[in-house]
Amino acid sequence: MKVVALAGGVGGAKLADGLARILSPQDLTIIVNTGDDFEHWGLNVCPDLDSVCYMLAGFNNTVTGWGRADESWNAFEEIKKLGGDDWFRIGDKDLATHLMRSGRLRQGVRLSQVTAELCNRWQIRPAVLPMTDDPVYTWVQTVEHGLLPFQQYFVQHGCRPRVSGFEFRGAQDSKPAPGVIMAIDEADMIAVCPSNPMVSIGPILAVPGILDALRRKKWVVAVSPLINGKAVKGPAAKMYEELGMQPSSLEVAKHYRGWVHHIFIDAVDQDLAGSIRALGLDVSVGNIMMSAAEDRIRLAELVLNTVPNTLSGLS
Amino acid sequence: MKVVALAGGVGGAKLADGLARILSPQDLTIIVNTGDDFEHWGLNVCPDLDSVCYMLAGFNNTVTGWGRADESWNAFEEIKKLGGDDWFRIGDKDLATHLMRSGRLRQGVRLSQVTAELCNRWQIRPAVLPMTDDPVYTWVQTVEHGLLPFQQYFVQHGCRPRVSGFEFRGAQDSKPAPGVIMAIDEADMIAVCPSNPMVSIGPILAVPGILDALRRKKWVVAVSPLINGKAVKGPAAKMYEELGMQPSSLEVAKHYRGWVHHIFIDAVDQDLAGSIRALGLDVSVGNIMMSAAEDRIRLAELVLNTVPNTLSGLS
Repeated sequence: MKVVALAGGVGGAKLADGLARILSPQDLTIIVNTGDDFEHWGLNVCPDLDSVCYMLAGFNNTVTGWGRADESWNAFEEIKKLGGDDWFRIGDKDLATHLMRSGRLRQGVRLSQVTAELCNRWQIRPAVLPMTDDPVYTWVQTVEHGLLPFQQYFVQHGCRPRVSGFEFRGAQDSKPAPGVIMAIDEADMIAVCPSNPMVSIGPILAVPGILDALRRKKWVVAVSPLINGKAVKGPAAKMYEELGMQPSSLEVAKHYRGWVHHIFIDAVDQDLAGSIRALGLDVSVGNIMMSAAEDRIRLAELVLNTVPNTLSGLS
Repeated sequence: MKVVALAGGVGGAKLADGLARILSPQDLTIIVNTGDDFEHWGLNVCPDLDSVCYMLAGFNNTVTGWGRADESWNAFEEIKKLGGDDWFRIGDKDLATHLMRSGRLRQGVRLSQVTAELCNRWQIRPAVLPMTDDPVYTWVQTVEHGLLPFQQYFVQHGCRPRVSGFEFRGAQDSKPAPGVIMAIDEADMIAVCPSNPMVSIGPILAVPGILDALRRKKWVVAVSPLINGKAVKGPAAKMYEELGMQPSSLEVAKHYRGWVHHIFIDAVDQDLAGSIRALGLDVSVGNIMMSAAEDRIRLAELVLNTVPNTLSGLS
């Protein structure tokens, strides 16, 4: 069974990792948000691609939730002393990724190709694809500071400003990265990882052609990023509130209605199941929290098992 | 008494440091070779500027002779794993320098200005000036590999290829960095540090206007980089041999004849003093080896004391 996962930050990386531990590598393609990408210290930083890759390679930092395990901060500390930007921390090992990527991009190599090269070195076998090779930048419209580039909102301002909207600049002129549409077309199912629907999944859908391809699919399963109205990590719940919505898995289902067929919500939210089914989505209720690697595998299995045998070609 | 020092690699950095420990900061300007500069991992690396600055800041690596003390190699090790260039090692702290410098240069700031900013942060008070803000690249003509960029000859090939000549590409179109000619014009004496005459001092002299300014000076003192026909560090002796010359302080004196008035040679080379005086240079004989900081200060004092009172304005 061929699967495409759509992923953003840490939650996305976790379910992608669970899927990678079950599926044959050639059967899994992970399409990753690049709207968070930015330039820092003159380097091209791709936070979501790195979160997914570091998790799949097994050297993600489980304490911080970003960056690499067993990290040192010697370059960062020196850059601070030199008056450099210190609002975004890059560890020494992490720096190697950005240096290599930036060097290859400067040579004219496309991000999807550079990502494949990095994955090859890190012995990551499923395909990890940026949503696009073109520059797409997520900007956050805030009440206090106007429009902010995503990382400034997210890291520099610690998600504190109130959000009133988003822009995915460059999206309308972007093309899906090579392989993205083909992977979606060939997939037996699409898994929408528990990533922020607005700023992780949203930019992927904003790349022309991707949502159309998803709408052609018969089996799209999402895992809600909210449990009991709260995000496991990140500002999703806060954003829903500031945009005038009640943060809950029901809101996520409304968000995804029209192209997602089935949603996983947590057992604590089971009273929402009826309202979600009324929207036309199937619902699975269970423990969707992924704390340890076993949780990722368990949830990935549940997600894969939603697919009717008639669709997956299995009998 | 105002002093200008011309410096290249480690020997240059050592005498410059000795001078900096004696003179008032406003009385010392160090003009540094930039012919060794190159791009590595997409960053602008300036080995000689860094050798001088790290020494003056007191955090140079005394074990390797280059780079920073208490260094870690985590980015380097990761870059190696990713298949990146590993023939030139950059430590994590050192990396911060190149990242900051590259960022500022990309913003259009001149190298001399960036160097001043770094020195300010490192609390280096004498002026450290690159010879030029323009791109000048030392190429080494070798028997085995043809023309090699300096760092490839020096580091990648470990100075093994036989040398038949040098090119300082871009030199004829370069201009001295702001302050270089003024510092020379205002100096009471010029100290030519014990750097490689061909590839450390040579490129400085190749910048149009610098040699002319030096020729106008009444007191130019050099310290030989050779002791008993051997370089304290680096390929100077090997280069003289390969170019068909007998490596010795006499050869250095011949090299500098016409603009250097006085040369310091080591006591073991005292039998060369007569031949050097016959070339028209004054000679001081003594211990010119700089092992510890005290040696740097002692040698710097000897160099400064060569200046006749009538020239220095002291009475």
